[in-house]
Amino acid sequence: MSIETLSEQSEKAYALLKEDAEKILKLIEVQMTNLTMPQCPLYEEVLDTQMFGLSREIDFAIRLNLVNEEDGKKLLGQLEKELSSLHEASMNRK
Amino acid sequence: MSIETLSEQSEKAYALLKEDAEKILKLIEVQMTNLTMPQCPLYEEVLDTQMFGLSREIDFAIRLNLVNEEDGKKLLGQLEKELSSLHEASMNRK
Repeated sequence: MSIETLSEQSEKAYALLKEDAEKILKLIEVQMTNLTMPQCPLYEEVLDTQMFGLSREIDFAIRLNLVNEEDGKKLLGQLEKELSSLHEASMNRK
Repeated sequence: MSIETLSEQSEKAYALLKEDAEKILKLIEVQMTNLTMPQCPLYEEVLDTQMFGLSREIDFAIRLNLVNEEDGKKLLGQLEKELSSLHEASMNRK
């Protein structure tokens, strides 16, 4: 078995989390422009579930000492900010 | 920074996932005996969301090469089996 330092694993973990946050943003973007209205309960449910999934991943990475708590919170906070801008932009177009 | 081998991290990751599966089982058990009926949509929603969260954690651990795909699937499958026994037992009591 190969040996990786905690620091290498940590970088990888953080990159994966950022990737997943990016995927949620893209998913919500597609949903907003093509499928449903932001007021739709289905939209809210998809978003809540996705955010919960990402927060579980981040929490898991924190418990493995791969990501520190502050960076994890920042990542989630940043995604929330981007989603809310997206939401606002979409409301203004309608 | 301390150096941990992938194998140590892997054991830790697997233990955390098992702990989380156990927590879901306990949560659903409490819900079934005290709060809501298994037919309640809220129950279904909580269960689905929790299972999604755990599956995201497992997938994350697989992508970090901490857990192999087969073990991850087994863990989720085992939890599903236990939940379904719990569900059946609860239906039989009513």
